[in-house]
Amino acid sequence: MKLLCPICGKTYDEPVQRCECGEPVEFEPFKGEPYIGKTVWERFWDFWPVEPALELSLGEGDTPLVKSRLGEELGVKLYLKNETVNPTWSFKDRGTFLALSHALRESYKAVGTVSTGNMAASVSAYASRFGLRAKILVSESASDEKLKAVSVYGGEVIRVRGDYGKLYFESLNLGERLGVYFINSDNPFRIEGYKGIAFEIAEEVSPDYVLIPTSSGGLFRGIAKGFIELHESGLIDGLPTLIAVQAEGCSPICRAFKEGKTRVERFEKPETIAKAIANPYPPSGNAVLKLLREFGWKCVTVSDDEIREAQRKLAGEGIFVQPASATGVAALRKLELPEGVKVVSILTGSGLKTLKNAPARKIRECPLEELENCLG
Amino acid sequence: MKLLCPICGKTYDEPVQRCECGEPVEFEPFKGEPYIGKTVWERFWDFWPVEPALELSLGEGDTPLVKSRLGEELGVKLYLKNETVNPTWSFKDRGTFLALSHALRESYKAVGTVSTGNMAASVSAYASRFGLRAKILVSESASDEKLKAVSVYGGEVIRVRGDYGKLYFESLNLGERLGVYFINSDNPFRIEGYKGIAFEIAEEVSPDYVLIPTSSGGLFRGIAKGFIELHESGLIDGLPTLIAVQAEGCSPICRAFKEGKTRVERFEKPETIAKAIANPYPPSGNAVLKLLREFGWKCVTVSDDEIREAQRKLAGEGIFVQPASATGVAALRKLELPEGVKVVSILTGSGLKTLKNAPARKIRECPLEELENCLG
Repeated sequence: MKLLCPICGKTYDEPVQRCECGEPVEFEPFKGEPYIGKTVWERFWDFWPVEPALELSLGEGDTPLVKSRLGEELGVKLYLKNETVNPTWSFKDRGTFLALSHALRESYKAVGTVSTGNMAASVSAYASRFGLRAKILVSESASDEKLKAVSVYGGEVIRVRGDYGKLYFESLNLGERLGVYFINSDNPFRIEGYKGIAFEIAEEVSPDYVLIPTSSGGLFRGIAKGFIELHESGLIDGLPTLIAVQAEGCSPICRAFKEGKTRVERFEKPETIAKAIANPYPPSGNAVLKLLREFGWKCVTVSDDEIREAQRKLAGEGIFVQPASATGVAALRKLELPEGVKVVSILTGSGLKTLKNAPARKIRECPLEELENCLG
Repeated sequence: MKLLCPICGKTYDEPVQRCECGEPVEFEPFKGEPYIGKTVWERFWDFWPVEPALELSLGEGDTPLVKSRLGEELGVKLYLKNETVNPTWSFKDRGTFLALSHALRESYKAVGTVSTGNMAASVSAYASRFGLRAKILVSESASDEKLKAVSVYGGEVIRVRGDYGKLYFESLNLGERLGVYFINSDNPFRIEGYKGIAFEIAEEVSPDYVLIPTSSGGLFRGIAKGFIELHESGLIDGLPTLIAVQAEGCSPICRAFKEGKTRVERFEKPETIAKAIANPYPPSGNAVLKLLREFGWKCVTVSDDEIREAQRKLAGEGIFVQPASATGVAALRKLELPEGVKVVSILTGSGLKTLKNAPARKIRECPLEELENCLG
């Protein structure tokens, strides 16, 4: 199985992480047919670049697609792909599991990642599960509290002082030299794992639009590749329109797209409540830009107020998400979609991970003897 | 469909919540056959007392059964039933969904519950999902921080000053009078929802033992009823041995069982880190005692230190649970089970809900220019 660079087209026979040109590589498209099976890994067995280590699965994937009322006032049929019910409560687990399946088969003894949030927890958890050591590199600013949900799994958490953007590339270089397999945000196996989201959606509906919170670009590229492979395998009739959603306060991909550029530039002074998608210089940014242009897809930004409002509305449907996960629904009303279309919004991670910033509501006080009045 | 009292045997045609004798009622046993279907609700369609409102489901249930290494040193095959990946990240969602399906069909406009933790979040979430008002009664001591994860869904949270034990019964009485359907810990529909855990386990393995963290007794009764109904329907060959697990610092059921009593007495001054199972006077305690005696099942207590150790070990397998959920695995080594037996431990709720008390680990510091040394 070859890897290729989606930007310059160069191909590789060995499992490199990035092209010589600096861009991320990806596996050549898979074709296949579906099978009967309990897990997404089994049902789409033809589509993975490595045999999934099913005996070590934690049950990642196969998440619910929930019908939502939130599209009604806009006249669209909205479905929520709830990735908050993965084993470490974010979509990252799909990619981590597949990348660790690769690391295991290649006999790595240690894996690593650069993240302060969902991916850090995911890699820490799966490394322990797979019996591998984990090196979790986090930024100076990450709070001890936040890192509890990472270090609890047993991975070694290292707070690195210095440019966080450089750390992504430095970790790949050093990892290769030291035999630590770094599974960063757009590792090629990770991207493949995210295809499962597209596969599962296609099993239930034929969406016209899919809303994808976009930071590094890894999730967007994975879902896109999933739909493209289903289409090229003759399993779906057409491609949905994918919509990359970014926070206004950190939207390097949308900005470059709007300005007609083919290269993403660093977004200075990012500021948004959607921390999980606040990557100012996304390593898969150019690859996402190319997909958007090639297929006529879209990029949309939403403000923090719009994100908060969407987070509240989603909770009102019973799903508590972190701010980044609410961006899709926030984008919905800005898009003016045709009436009756089917839209899927990807909910990437649990609201419990950002509980501190959750909208507080008033708590009423009531003495037991006055309970009847309080309930009335 | 009749309800009956498992203690005095009286039957009821209307959907009462408790028997005149003071004990909880339950639905007469269901018999049926399994069907093909995506959800546990569909596959076990014959076994529910009300038609599940599938169009409002959030995807509760159908959780992973994860093979664990933690039984190896004890010579047993251990499986972890991971309920932390439910929509509000605890097993409560199964019971809440079914009880709200009933409330909806009976045209209630408001529902309620008495809880400070998992159940409060679950009822608050599903009430919003079902378009019903929610009255969530919590104890004086519940922190604002903890209640954020409850009120975010939009339910009305009421902090009640007074005896928290009395509140359980008072809420049922007042609820009936005021038309608020209270779904407390052992509501008969809630119990039925928990049967799904037994059904899903039986689809994958034939366990010899099932370890169940036990507080009010609702979960224990539900899982027991599920296995009993499968057995009476001829779908499994024998019943597993169910083991109620309690924290030493709050173990009213185990104490009564050990002392040969048929009635549970209030456990004075409960104190344990396993807050989610710290009910000092469990409303289904006597019903659980009866099941333990009738089937020759067991009750085991574990210390806070043993719970912490099990929580750490589970995290080392990639699953971060709240302390109460670690009690099953903590109990495992005290049981001296025969070699080679199959054991399922129920993991009831996510560790993110009790993040503050999670075991903190040391975070290393490293300047970027020294990263190579830090990784080596």
